[in-house]
Amino acid sequence: MVETAQRGTAISRDEYKARAPEVRAALLETQQALRRTEAFAVVIVLAGVDTAGRGKTLNLLNAWMDPRWIVTRAWGPPSDEELERPPFWRYWRSLPPRGRIGLFHGAWYEPALADRVERETGQDVFERRLKRIATLEKMLTDDGALILKFWLHLDAEAQHERMKRLRRDPLTRWRVTDQHWRRLRQHARITRAAERAMRLTTTDRAPWLNVDGSDEHHRSLTVAAGVQTAIAAELERLGASDARRPRKGGRPAVRAGAPPAPAGAAGEGSVLDDLDLTQAVDRKRYRVELAKQQGRLHRAQRLAADRGLSTIAVFEGWDAAGKGGVIRRITAALDAREYRVIPISAPSGDELAHHYLWRFMRHLSRAGRVTIFDRSWYGRVLVERVEGLASEAEYTRAYAEINDFEEQLVDHGILLVKFWLHISRDEQLRRFRERQRTPHKTWKMTREDWRNRRRWDDYERAVAEMVARTGARRAPWLLIEANDKLFARLKVIRTLAGRLERRLK
Amino acid sequence: MVETAQRGTAISRDEYKARAPEVRAALLETQQALRRTEAFAVVIVLAGVDTAGRGKTLNLLNAWMDPRWIVTRAWGPPSDEELERPPFWRYWRSLPPRGRIGLFHGAWYEPALADRVERETGQDVFERRLKRIATLEKMLTDDGALILKFWLHLDAEAQHERMKRLRRDPLTRWRVTDQHWRRLRQHARITRAAERAMRLTTTDRAPWLNVDGSDEHHRSLTVAAGVQTAIAAELERLGASDARRPRKGGRPAVRAGAPPAPAGAAGEGSVLDDLDLTQAVDRKRYRVELAKQQGRLHRAQRLAADRGLSTIAVFEGWDAAGKGGVIRRITAALDAREYRVIPISAPSGDELAHHYLWRFMRHLSRAGRVTIFDRSWYGRVLVERVEGLASEAEYTRAYAEINDFEEQLVDHGILLVKFWLHISRDEQLRRFRERQRTPHKTWKMTREDWRNRRRWDDYERAVAEMVARTGARRAPWLLIEANDKLFARLKVIRTLAGRLERRLK
Repeated sequence: MVETAQRGTAISRDEYKARAPEVRAALLETQQALRRTEAFAVVIVLAGVDTAGRGKTLNLLNAWMDPRWIVTRAWGPPSDEELERPPFWRYWRSLPPRGRIGLFHGAWYEPALADRVERETGQDVFERRLKRIATLEKMLTDDGALILKFWLHLDAEAQHERMKRLRRDPLTRWRVTDQHWRRLRQHARITRAAERAMRLTTTDRAPWLNVDGSDEHHRSLTVAAGVQTAIAAELERLGASDARRPRKGGRPAVRAGAPPAPAGAAGEGSVLDDLDLTQAVDRKRYRVELAKQQGRLHRAQRLAADRGLSTIAVFEGWDAAGKGGVIRRITAALDAREYRVIPISAPSGDELAHHYLWRFMRHLSRAGRVTIFDRSWYGRVLVERVEGLASEAEYTRAYAEINDFEEQLVDHGILLVKFWLHISRDEQLRRFRERQRTPHKTWKMTREDWRNRRRWDDYERAVAEMVARTGARRAPWLLIEANDKLFARLKVIRTLAGRLERRLK
Repeated sequence: MVETAQRGTAISRDEYKARAPEVRAALLETQQALRRTEAFAVVIVLAGVDTAGRGKTLNLLNAWMDPRWIVTRAWGPPSDEELERPPFWRYWRSLPPRGRIGLFHGAWYEPALADRVERETGQDVFERRLKRIATLEKMLTDDGALILKFWLHLDAEAQHERMKRLRRDPLTRWRVTDQHWRRLRQHARITRAAERAMRLTTTDRAPWLNVDGSDEHHRSLTVAAGVQTAIAAELERLGASDARRPRKGGRPAVRAGAPPAPAGAAGEGSVLDDLDLTQAVDRKRYRVELAKQQGRLHRAQRLAADRGLSTIAVFEGWDAAGKGGVIRRITAALDAREYRVIPISAPSGDELAHHYLWRFMRHLSRAGRVTIFDRSWYGRVLVERVEGLASEAEYTRAYAEINDFEEQLVDHGILLVKFWLHISRDEQLRRFRERQRTPHKTWKMTREDWRNRRRWDDYERAVAEMVARTGARRAPWLLIEANDKLFARLKVIRTLAGRLERRLK
């Protein structure tokens, strides 16, 4: 059954270019509908033979969707904390809540298949493990989850070809390890085990899709379209596709009776005024330069991962300043297994019951990863200050608290980079209006955006004070002129890559 | 300053017996007020020289208060997951939310002091670490937390005496290690470092209390009274001591329009009817037997901790069946560092967005610990079923899901013990009335208790079906006749100790 996947179905570059944008737009729109309705959780499992493109597909899905609502995971050897719990505990830890997508590399199939192929478990134990997997998946799908499992396949010959090609290129040679050669010799055994696994774990709500991995265009479109149609069909079935649109994440409603806090500080003549917002770059230069900077960032992060150097990138900025777009260009350059995007929205009940920094502590990642905060602890001295959600005493002492928190990160050897994306008041208005005109962007606009805009001066004061009081030498604010989106993206990625390179020296 | 603690202040056994009940009652009441008002978080740090009684005090506070609202922690060498984050991350993970008490053995002081005493850090680094601690504590107290720090002291002579006494007794000899002797020789250095630490980290809301550890009675009363008065004073200051009493934890309000689900099953003639509820034990025999069984349990758990054998004890039962009382008698026999009591209340937002078993997965402990669930995943087939919070399809498939979940626990080598505390309808009524009459018990009664009582028959059907469908051989239900509280306590502890002993063989 695996070998009968549509082997040889290649898609030409032109055809891909013609079809990809449509699939991509549909996928993003479907993801947003899922997020808005919070109708169910989605788990995407990417399994398959080595070099068939699991990693690339993981990155592609992250690039084509909004990575802020995706939980990407790959599992190496279990940590000691994981070893002390039942084997599935590590997966439970990472399951996405309703409305989000878990993108799992190998997931629970990888260890089961590997142990069987290496003959560490007999057929009996293997089948028992598959049954346990089926039970886990049933539990999740019974709860409403959709589990989409892709087996990316290459026949032995194609796999061999690909490995030889990887070996020829000095840049990719390192990817072909001894284990790859052993796995190639085990190709028939892997195929047999995988077929058995699929047979025992295929259900309506947790289907396996067999994808020929030999042609990248075909593979990309097949997986992306498969994910999109499955989620869209389920939303349709639930009648959830046009459900109500909840408030944009990020800010709790103004607390009743809270004072409009912003006490003056800095204000006029701040560093923000010094920014030259006319800086721009033309699209042609942008394309060339972006590819170059992304390559730089990619190489630097590979090295950082090897060395266990963690990066935390914080993004703050005006509404519509283009944070999401910048973040997507960064993640596109990274291996999806090595970064996490943490969108900061209104705190949950658990979080409200703790110190406000507690929720950010929860998201500190293990060594060697990139953690991207889309909004951050600075909410305390920005929105919470301006909207009166934090008292003057609270936001005033927050500067010192944040400095201390960041000092701990830096002392621990983490590379901390903080960006403020700055646009002018006029530019923001232009973007708001454009969003309202463009159908697939309307969802981005909420009444809060207009309310925040009316408070521009208060926010500006808060930003200036924030930059002045939390821009320590070891954790400086990087101010990005973002009236031109292309310019802003390049500057952020160049800065990030540069800092990473310097730290690695 | 440390040496000037009220050295030699001994309290006679009679005086202790006279004063302890009052302190204890006040402490429990204060804890309940804190929990009800959720006014602030409390962190109690127990530090001091070896053998001065930190562990015993930890246990005492757990025994005198309701351990369900206490987060007890001691920190050994960091796990690999902890090593990859900044040093304070492990403490942040364990900070109690508002309304609860964190009981921390050594906390952030222990490594700072140890490194200094062992001369691994110079005075400069030591002082910097203390400043960082002060900053952490300030951050927490600024957020409203109360941090009570106790230094339990013995002078070198008294410490030596105590170590010799421990060595003489074969049962306690193991407690005196080489490190203890080394620390004794370092007594002057420890005292000096501790004094410096206290000086730099004493504030109004994070005070140090110096306690002479040489007399157990004096030490117990001093710490307990210290904790009680500090929390009570803070509640008083906030005017929170008689704040509104929120709904009893555990059950979300009935979902509007939910059907009163209970479809009949089992019902009449169930196993519950076979229980002989007249079984009782007189108080004198109870006292002797309780001490004996607690000793057994204590010894068995010591061995289990050494071997990394984890225990999960689940408690379900009728309202007022005495779950809390049983749990307190169990925890009184255990080292507070080795157990956790998890009170299950209405799910938080994060929890509602996941599969209902997800929240229980979160609480699986590391190896060698005892985890006590005060109510559990069985809520799905009890209260959620009866109140219509789970649909028939949901609670029906929950039996299989629970069986599978428990099988995973058992397969992982965890000892799983499930108790159903059974009382008669009349006995429940008697207890409800008594609670209403007794001032310090009134808070236990809510309207929900009366509502649940009116649903007795529905609950009985649900319980019978639960016992029938989830009583696997490897995870059986242990039905406890609980009309007589003393009988029930003995039976539970005897059963638990027995199961633990058998597993250790």
